Formats: sequence, C-alpha cells, structure tokens
Amino acid sequence: MSHVRVLNPNTSAAMTDAVLAAARAVARPGTTVTASRSRRAPATVETHVDEVFGAAGVLEQVEQGERDGVDGYVVACFGDTGLPAARELARGPVVGMTEAALQAASLLAHRFSVITMPPRTIAMTDRVVAGLGLSHRCTVRAVDVSVEEIETGAGPAFDAFADEARRALAAERAEAVVLGCAGLTDLVDGLRAALGVPVIDGVAAATTALEGLLAQDLTTSRANTWAEPAGSPTTGEVWG
Amino acid sequence: MSHVRVLNPNTSAAMTDAVLAAARAVARPGTTVTASRSRRAPATVETHVDEVFGAAGVLEQVEQGERDGVDGYVVACFGDTGLPAARELARGPVVGMTEAALQAASLLAHRFSVITMPPRTIAMTDRVVAGLGLSHRCTVRAVDVSVEEIETGAGPAFDAFADEARRALAAERAEAVVLGCAGLTDLVDGLRAALGVPVIDGVAAATTALEGLLAQDLTTSRANTWAEPAGSPTTGEVWG
Amino acid sequence: MSHVRVLNPNTSAAMTDAVLAAARAVARPGTTVTASRSRRAPATVETHVDEVFGAAGVLEQVEQGERDGVDGYVVACFGDTGLPAARELARGPVVGMTEAALQAASLLAHRFSVITMPPRTIAMTDRVVAGLGLSHRCTVRAVDVSVEEIETGAGPAFDAFADEARRALAAERAEAVVLGCAGLTDLVDGLRAALGVPVIDGVAAATTALEGLLAQDLTTSRANTWAEPAGSPTTGEVWG
Amino acid sequence: MSHVRVLNPNTSAAMTDAVLAAARAVARPGTTVTASRSRRAPATVETHVDEVFGAAGVLEQVEQGERDGVDGYVVACFGDTGLPAARELARGPVVGMTEAALQAASLLAHRFSVITMPPRTIAMTDRVVAGLGLSHRCTVRAVDVSVEEIETGAGPAFDAFADEARRALAAERAEAVVLGCAGLTDLVDGLRAALGVPVIDGVAAATTALEGLLAQDLTTSRANTWAEPAGSPTTGEVWG
Amino acid sequence: MSHVRVLNPNTSAAMTDAVLAAARAVARPGTTVTASRSRRAPATVETHVDEVFGAAGVLEQVEQGERDGVDGYVVACFGDTGLPAARELARGPVVGMTEAALQAASLLAHRFSVITMPPRTIAMTDRVVAGLGLSHRCTVRAVDVSVEEIETGAGPAFDAFADEARRALAAERAEAVVLGCAGLTDLVDGLRAALGVPVIDGVAAATTALEGLLAQDLTTSRANTWAEPAGSPTTGEVWG
Amino acid sequence: MSHVRVLNPNTSAAMTDAVLAAARAVARPGTTVTASRSRRAPATVETHVDEVFGAAGVLEQVEQGERDGVDGYVVACFGDTGLPAARELARGPVVGMTEAALQAASLLAHRFSVITMPPRTIAMTDRVVAGLGLSHRCTVRAVDVSVEEIETGAGPAFDAFADEARRALAAERAEAVVLGCAGLTDLVDGLRAALGVPVIDGVAAATTALEGLLAQDLTTSRANTWAEPAGSPTTGEVWG
Repeated sequence: MSHVRVLNPNTSAAMTDAVLAAARAVARPGTTVTASRSRRAPATVETHVDEVFGAAGVLEQVEQGERDGVDGYVVACFGDTGLPAARELARGPVVGMTEAALQAASLLAHRFSVITMPPRTIAMTDRVVAGLGLSHRCTVRAVDVSVEEIETGAGPAFDAFADEARRALAAERAEAVVLGCAGLTDLVDGLRAALGVPVIDGVAAATTALEGLLAQDLTTSRANTWAEPAGSPTTGEVWG
Repeated sequence: MSHVRVLNPNTSAAMTDAVLAAARAVARPGTTVTASRSRRAPATVETHVDEVFGAAGVLEQVEQGERDGVDGYVVACFGDTGLPAARELARGPVVGMTEAALQAASLLAHRFSVITMPPRTIAMTDRVVAGLGLSHRCTVRAVDVSVEEIETGAGPAFDAFADEARRALAAERAEAVVLGCAGLTDLVDGLRAALGVPVIDGVAAATTALEGLLAQDLTTSRANTWAEPAGSPTTGEVWG
Repeated sequence: MSHVRVLNPNTSAAMTDAVLAAARAVARPGTTVTASRSRRAPATVETHVDEVFGAAGVLEQVEQGERDGVDGYVVACFGDTGLPAARELARGPVVGMTEAALQAASLLAHRFSVITMPPRTIAMTDRVVAGLGLSHRCTVRAVDVSVEEIETGAGPAFDAFADEARRALAAERAEAVVLGCAGLTDLVDGLRAALGVPVIDGVAAATTALEGLLAQDLTTSRANTWAEPAGSPTTGEVWG
Repeated sequence: MSHVRVLNPNTSAAMTDAVLAAARAVARPGTTVTASRSRRAPATVETHVDEVFGAAGVLEQVEQGERDGVDGYVVACFGDTGLPAARELARGPVVGMTEAALQAASLLAHRFSVITMPPRTIAMTDRVVAGLGLSHRCTVRAVDVSVEEIETGAGPAFDAFADEARRALAAERAEAVVLGCAGLTDLVDGLRAALGVPVIDGVAAATTALEGLLAQDLTTSRANTWAEPAGSPTTGEVWG
Repeated sequence: MSHVRVLNPNTSAAMTDAVLAAARAVARPGTTVTASRSRRAPATVETHVDEVFGAAGVLEQVEQGERDGVDGYVVACFGDTGLPAARELARGPVVGMTEAALQAASLLAHRFSVITMPPRTIAMTDRVVAGLGLSHRCTVRAVDVSVEEIETGAGPAFDAFADEARRALAAERAEAVVLGCAGLTDLVDGLRAALGVPVIDGVAAATTALEGLLAQDLTTSRANTWAEPAGSPTTGEVWG
Repeated sequence: MSHVRVLNPNTSAAMTDAVLAAARAVARPGTTVTASRSRRAPATVETHVDEVFGAAGVLEQVEQGERDGVDGYVVACFGDTGLPAARELARGPVVGMTEAALQAASLLAHRFSVITMPPRTIAMTDRVVAGLGLSHRCTVRAVDVSVEEIETGAGPAFDAFADEARRALAAERAEAVVLGCAGLTDLVDGLRAALGVPVIDGVAAATTALEGLLAQDLTTSRANTWAEPAGSPTTGEVWG
C-alpha cells in the first residue's frame, strides 16, 4: 500500500491536523496518510514573502519525506506554494491543493468560482488558474476574514464564505465553489447544504488526484522542466 | 462500495472489454466496475457523424445505468463523446477520458502532447483541450494507423505511436504523452519504457478521477448548465 | 439558381415556418428556399440531451436534402446543433445561425452581446463564441422566458429581451445585439427601434452567409476535419 | 437595388479594375457595383507608411461615395486599410476583404492559412486575425513575390502561392487557404484545382458579406466606437 | 547627449506645450527634449477619422525630425496614433505613450485600469492593450468629459477621473491607474494623493522608456515588419 | 541622486561583478549603482529548487538594501527570481531583468525570441512571458551550454547563441532577440553585429526601466497584491 504525505508549508500544528484529517477522510482504504509542517516558516502564508519561506519549508519536508520512503505528496496551501521545486525533489508525484480543486470543479461545473482569503492572495490563485488555463471558466473572489476566525471555524467565517459564494452564483452564474484556503474542510458540508452546489476542498481533491496518479503508476516527468535537480544544494547545505 | 461504469460509445465488444480491463486495473479495492457499449452506433467513432450516433448511444447507456443504480460513469472515447448530455442525465458524476488524461498530464509535465488517430479527429481533441484551456501547454498530433491495427496491438501501431511521440519530445520539448484513443492500454508499458516519459491512458485517468469525486461525495452541479433535463424525452421516446 | 434549405433541429412546425420565412426574407431573388424539421427529436432544444437528439435529426434532414439536390444548408438552432456532422454529410456548404450572427455582429460593432434563453443554454453559445475566438468582443446573457412566450411573440418576451439588451448596452457598452434563439425574427424590428443599435437574427445572417459561399463556388473543405465520413453509417442503418 | 462600391486604397488603375471584376462576379443580380481608387496615395500598400496614406485615400473615397449615394463599401486591400474610419464616415456598412475572407474560411475549415505578400505585411494580417480572435485556427504565411509579378499573373506568382500553400497544408494541416492580397482573383481557380481545398479571395468574400448585411437592413452601430465623427474635419479641410 | 522629440498628432499648441513639459520633467539631465505638432490634422484625436489625419501628421513630423537629427520619438496621443509607420520612418526608436504607460503599470501593480476619454476611444486603448497582451491584467474605463475641461484642468475633469478611478479600485481591485489621454499631467499629483495608488502619465512613461532604449543603444528592428519603407512616398510627394 | 541596487540571487562574485557592470553602463549620470549577492544560495539558479533558495537570498538582500537606503532594485536572474516578494519588502520599485527585456523587445519588434539556457529553465521564462501576456509575440528557445562556458565567454557560448538566434529569425520570423540569462552582456555587441537585429540584455533593460520609474516618482502599489507584508517574519527571524 502506498504512503501519502500532506505537506503544510506553514508551522501551524492545528492547520496540519486539519489537513491531515481532510486527506484521511477521502484516501483509499489501506493508504498510509501522514502530514508534516514547516520547521522554519511563518504561522500562515498570506504574502509573497511568506511564500518564499513556505516554499523552503516544503523543500525541507520533501527531503525528510524521501528519507521516510513517502510515495507521493500533497501541497496543502492555496497557491500551491513550492510545488515546482517539490516536484523536482520527490521521486513520486506531487499535487497541489489549488490545481486539484480547480480540476475537480471543471469536471462538475461549466463555470465556477474560487473564494479565497485574504484579498491580497488573489494573485496567487490567479497564478494557478492561469497556469492551468482556466481563466475562461473560473472567477476568483476573496473574503476579508482573519486566519484566526478560519482556524476556529466560528460563524463569521462561514457566513463570509456563504455570502461571497452566493454573490458568485448570482452575478457570474457560477455553478460550483472552490474554498480558497487550507483548513476549511469543516465548512464544506454546511456550505453545500446552504448553497446547493458542489463545494470543493482542495486538500481532499489533491489527495484523490495523487492516489489516482499512484494507481496509474505515474510520476513527474524527468524529461526537462522538473528533472532531478542534480546540482542543487539541500536545505541543510544552504541554511544549516 | 461504489459502482462505476465505463461507457463505450461504439458497438465494439473487444473495445468494451479493453476499456473495462483498463478501468479495473486502477480502481479502488471494493469498487464494482462494469462496462457497457452502444446498442445503435458505429463500430468506431472517427467522424463527427459517428459522434452523433455515439452520443445517442451514451445516453441510452446512462438511462440503463441509472436503472442499475450506477454511482458514476467514465466516457471511454477520445473526444469525450456525449459527455455534457450524460452529465445532465446521471445522478452521479461523469468523467471523460480525454479531459482526465489532459488533467493528469498537466500534473506531471509542463508541456505535453496528445497522439491521436486518425488525423481527422484532431478537431475533437482540440475541442476538449480548448474547453479545459490547456492549449498553451499541449499539442495535438496524430498517426495514420487503422483501427484494426490498434485493436490487434500489432507492431505497426506501437511503432507509429512511438515515432510520433519521439517527434513531440524532440520538436516541442513535450515531457509527457497522452494516448489519444480508447483501447490503447496495452501500448502504455512499452511506450513508457521506450520513451522514458509519462504515458497516459485516459480510461485509467478517468476512472481514478471519477473515484476521487465519489470519495469527496461530489457530483455534477445542478445549478444551471448541466441541470436535470426535466422536459427532455428519453432515447426510447425518440427512437423507440 | 441555387436551392437552400433551412434545417430545424426540433420537431416544431411553427418554428420551421418561422425560420423559413426569415430566410426567404433575405434570400437572393431566384434562390429556392425550403425548410425541414426533425422527424425524431424534442419539440425544443434546451438541454444537451436535446442537442444529441437534435443533431441526429439534422443528419437525417441532410440525408434527405442530399437526395433532394439541395445546394447548401442553414442550421436554424442557436448553438448550431449538429453542425460539424452536417458539414461532413453535405456536398455543399453548411452555416450555423449562431456563427453567422456572431460574424455579422463583428462587422457592425466593436463589442456586442448575445441575449439567449433559457439561461442553461449559455454554455452552448459559449461553445460557438469560443470556437470563433470572439470572447474578447462578445458577452453572453440570457433571459428567463419560456419557449411558449417566444413562439407566441407576446409582450413579455419582447420586454424581457429589450430589458436584458439595455443592460448589455449600459453595463458592457455593447454596441449591437444578437438574438440567441431561432424563431425570434418577429422581434427584430421592434428591438431595433427600441434599442437604436443593430439587432441580428441568426437565421437571416446564416442565409446570406450561405448564399455568399455559394456565389463564390465554395464548399466545406474535404482535406481533413470535415472530409466525407466514408465509413460512417446512415441514420437509417443505425435507427431504422 | 443597392449600390456597392469597392474601395481600392492605392492608386493603381489595374488593381481597381481587378477588384471590381472580382466583386461583380459574385454580386447579386441587380446590384450596382462600382469601384474607386485613391487619388493621393502610393501605387501599392506594402508598409505601415503606405497604410497611413491608403487610409486617407479611403476616407476621401468614402466622402465621394456618400455624395454618390453608395449603400455600402468593400475595402479592397489586405489588412483592411482605413476600415474603422470608413465605418464612421459611411451611412451604410463597410466590410474589409481580410475580415471577410477569414470569416468565410472559418465556415469551411477547422484550420486554415493566409498566404500574404510581401513578408513585412504579416503584421497587418496578424492585426486582423487577432481582432477577430482567430489566431487559434489560422496561420499567416508569406511569399516573397513582387507586386509586378502579381499584377501580371505570371507563372512565378502562381507557383509561389501554390508552394507556400502546400507547405501550410502539410506542416499545419491547414484545410483552406486565404489569398492575402487584393488582385489575386485570377489565381483562385488554378489554386483550387492544384490544392484541392477551398481558396478564398477576400474581395469576393467581402462583397457577399456586404450584400448580406444590406439584405438584412443592417449597418454599422452608432452606439459608441464607430459613431458618426461629428467634430472631425473632412479630407478637403485638412489637405485641401 | 541625445535629442528626444515628443510628437503631438493633433494641432493644439497648448497640448504640445503640456506634453513637452511632461517629458522634460522626467528626462535625463543633458537630454535635449523638443516637441512638434501636426500641421494638417484635427485639433483633437477622438475618432478613427481623426486618427488617420493624426497619423499622417505624425509622419510629417518624423520626416522633419529626421532632418533635424532627432535620436528618438515619443508619440503623445493615447492610442499611439501612427506608431508603426513612425517606426518605419525613424532611424531611432519610437515609443507610444499608451504602450509605455501600460508597461509601467505592469511593473507596479498586479491589476490596473486605464481611465480614458471620451468613451468612443475605448476601442483605441483596447487595441494597444491587446497588442501588448495585457487584457488579463488591465481594464479600460472612460469618463464623459470634454476636451476643453481637460485642457483647462478645471475641477470637473479631476473629479470625473477620481470618481471613475475609485470605481476601478473598488469593483475590479485595480491597484494602479493609467491616465488615458495626453495633457493630463497636471492631474497626476492630485490623483495620487486622492487615490493612494500609482497614477501614470503616459508621456512621462514613454520618455523614460525611450531614453532607456537609447541608453542601451537599441533601435527598431529592421528585420521585417518595421523595416525602412524604401519604396513608400513621403508626405510631401502625396499631399504636396 | 538615486541609489539603485542590482540583486544577484546566486552567490557568484563573478556574476555579480558582471551584472553590476552591465547596469552601470546604462545608468543615468549621477545615479549610484551597487550590487549584492545571496549569502545563502546556490552558485547558479538552474532549477526550481535553486529558485527557492535564490528567492530567499533576494529577500535577505532587500532587507539589507532597505537598511542601506536603496531607492530601487533590479533582480538580475532570468526568471525574475523572488520578484513579487521583493516588491512587498522594498519601499521603492523593483524590476526584473526578464520582464524588462521582454518589454523592451516589444517596443522594437513585432515578434521576438528569448534564447535561454539550459533548456530546463524554459518554464521559468514561460512564466514571465505569460504573466506579461506576450505569448503571441514571443517564442522561447534554449541552448545547451554550461554556465562555465557562459561565465568565461568562450567561443562555444557565442556560437550557440548565434546559431539558435538565427534559427529563430529564419523559422519564426523573429525580429529581435532577448538573451535569457544574466551575465551575458559581453555577448551583446558581437551578436548584434552577427545577427543584424536588436539583441537585448535584461540587466541593462531593467536598470533603465527602474530609473524611469524613479524619475516618475513611482513605486509599487500598496493597494492589495504587493502591500507591505506587515505580519511576515524576516529572514533573520526564520533562518537565524
């Protein structure tokens, strides 16, 4: 059976527990699902500066994962922090929660909308949407809630996401909603009931996409872009 | 456990057996995988005329599948014949082999190439590539081999695909290859060995993508585009 | 003189009469204009399921048209149902009402808007807009009126279209309007007067585009995509 | 009956005769077709500098046409020189030979190619292709022949176009060819016979498109972009 | 030291003074900055007809500039009137105020908005935005103010721009604003203070971009599109 | 006078000297130009793993630069490593060598080509090209030369770039060439002479673009995407 690891680019233990639970809820029977978090990084990834630190944390986690014999990885941060570098380092496939969520949405809805937070991270979602070429089917919206509200799952977060999603449904005829942040799994069932459309959590989507690649015995192409970084140093060599 | 059905738009029993085997090889343990084929359709889908008949055959198969309590469907024809209509009819999710193959390729390679056949079907692949927005990462090539060669798996088919794939790798720096026809599963291992890059069979990719959606308890949005076709007749009402 | 036939994918005699009248109103003097409708299909095409049946009905009509010596065809359903397959079957050119309307609009206005109905068919218009590459100049809007209102031409339909068109003019600076359904010809004059911008009926646009191709002695390329479907069965062989 | 005028942006009488003949060959019975040419402009339009002079010449011709009661205009220069300004000045519709040729090609072929000349004018064709959004279906190629060869219709021009077209058919699977210069009408029949695919002359295509708009009682939108240039001076006021 | 000339396509002396001042305010110490205006053209460029006359005026100015030994040119009209032809004629580089403003904005903001005037000129800005490929990051808005208000810099113009810019910031999350008309330099400081985001004047942006090219010893490529127009006549030869 | 700093994401002193010289050669008289390099990073940036380390090195350099009162920064690595994060941290503007080179090329040529190295970095250039929207005018090519050859400027590097550039000119009608690596400034004059088209070095282009922004008193928008990262840690806090 395969061993899948969920990588949390930030240092939050609570977030790590949340994404691990989200992955385990959808994994195949028999799959071992573990999670890790960055040792040296911010508590949340909300800026491009945070993304640099978060990406370095992802690399260190993949180095550890390779030592642990992990078969494949999920990057559990909206924006897919550090994904290309992780693909170079890992023997097995690596799937980002953002790309997987967008791909799942495209199988369920002609048009859909991402609701991310805070607004300044819209550019990071735009980056993934553009990379996949889905700009013609996907809009990106944001709510102004704090990470604390998200982590506690209190009412304001739910209402903020529900209200913004309703605006997407009405104004853009969106037919499905992608939750634009890790750790929002607890909102999924309530939002599905409230909105009546598919609501997608990227960690779950990425876990099943990763397992699908493993079942097909597929891993990252070594042909050019994501070939092994033979001459590159390790995180230990660079930062001690 | 869930029940997944692979829909073959054409009438070929051999092709149906092949795609069923491809799906079963990657399905989760415990999943029931069945297959069906069109009752009234051409033996192969190579023209837009064939696609019309094949789409009607897919509808009839979904009508039967709903009576059989099927949880989700794979459309096993390159070009994803009849996919939007199938989504309207089915309670559960429906995944096309083309869209799933392209999405898997995008997780493994920066640039990739579809090798389809015969050349006149390039437009059908273009349609799916454009629908997903992947034109900037994917080229579409074709080989001139007959369906008989494909069905028998004889040497010429393998060589034709390998040669065309090598041209894609060299001329376009493609890093992965999508096989652009159902029933080519037997070529996968040989081509992977010969080419040294990921080679993707859409039926396998679609089966795992479909199971991923089922694991997430997700199905087609009923919000607008693919809502139930309440006023539409059945195939029996139209064609007896 | 040439013989042009307007193909109505659905089974409505009233709609068939309406599109025939629209075509005759703009045809060249001396051209014979006839119309036909599907024998086995829904009464209206509003879902993707309907489109499958409608496309099959179009094929059967083209088979009859070829026996009748028809020189070219108009597909009179918004979304251009069955168009690629009709191109393969017909010796002469085939023009869809949607593509022709969009092309006419692009000659008259920098930006324009389609007003279609009901909303679930927006995806079908999106398909034609994307195929022609006009997404940067064209928006797609929809009104929630029933086909009955449309067929009777009662006030509510007119007002619904006029109101939605005014929103397009104001909010998107649209400079022309395409009516997104066959059988709306009777609304054209009133809407032109009310809106003060070009209002385009696709059946009229397609009829003149088709006659233009005939005047240039042009027909569908047989080079690859729309070559004759030599090995494909007829509707009679498939459905009896 | 309507009066259509073909506008030749350059000063060549021979070219004017050629485009007039091309238009008359496809016009509706009863339509009056006339032609005019620039009074102050270069003998051919091959540079952006030429285009400025040619556009001014088109304006002067439209001013004269309006005095003559012309109902609609064709701009007979590849690149559609002066088209937007002509639309502002003319009461009736104006169609460019480039846009009309591209639109006709899109009705006949999934992919097609323009063969223009000389190579430095590729950018002007690119401009029209991009304006119509057809970059995904159309390539632009050029031959290095002189205008003299074109005007005399000697063998080298025919062979140059035929050879370049064959390269487009082979290398890009083009299925139709657009002749990228006015005055090439005499090549059409020979190229169609030699290539076996639709070969489109833009002057003919524009003439029928223009007549189609007239038959639908449609003219340029006055809503915004191409509204009458109320405050603009005439060519006489500016240049005497 | 280099000699840079700002070309005003229209005939307004006041506008010419304004753009000259804007250029001088940002030019390198030691650079000679001069300006010229069209001799035969409209007083403002607000229509496509005006653009034709303005482009001819630009050509005449470049012809004079070449005689004066000018090293590089700025085209000081939003829409970059006559730019491609000017590139062919000038030995040195030519930069349009629109393209330079858009490029500067892209270095400062993920999304931005042009506020142009009057609304009918939106199409001209769209042309430059599309030519640069920035449609995914830039919206184009317009205010309905008269040129007189702009030239006098009275309150209404400032308020109109500020209000429209605030709508762009709020509704589209624009992060910077481009002023879509020459001669608005006096509004820059006030708008920056009022809006709190970068506000860009294209004449200033183009002047520094041009000086950058000169510092790198770069000029327009002569390879194909903008090669010298060897066979083209001069404005004197055409218009006397 | 302003103080501009060139940031070298890698640790090579020779490369740092080279980019400093390139910047100084084009800077305004009176501008202070300094350079720095990463303290903890690889010797070259050739993989996505290297990019993570390089981006972190850029952050540390900007932190130092802010303490030094630097007015603006150039990121001197093809791919613009760490650029968005640097924009958040710096008070003044930050320009990447890739984006600046592409923008300069677009002012000089209708179509152009980047020649980068090694091939696996094509994806990083693609990222910048797509971010600017220039895919329709720019191709990306690569040569297979080692960094050692580049740093020594030996014959093979020159020939490799010249040969690949000639292929771009011939096969794609490219009209200008962008050198896709920092430290290639010494090749510029020779390549310009050999190719006869503009050859652009991104460090020079970025330096002049940056000075242009400073002359206009413009800096990064603080409105949303690149607002100050108030809650983000410093490199010292994360890595000691």
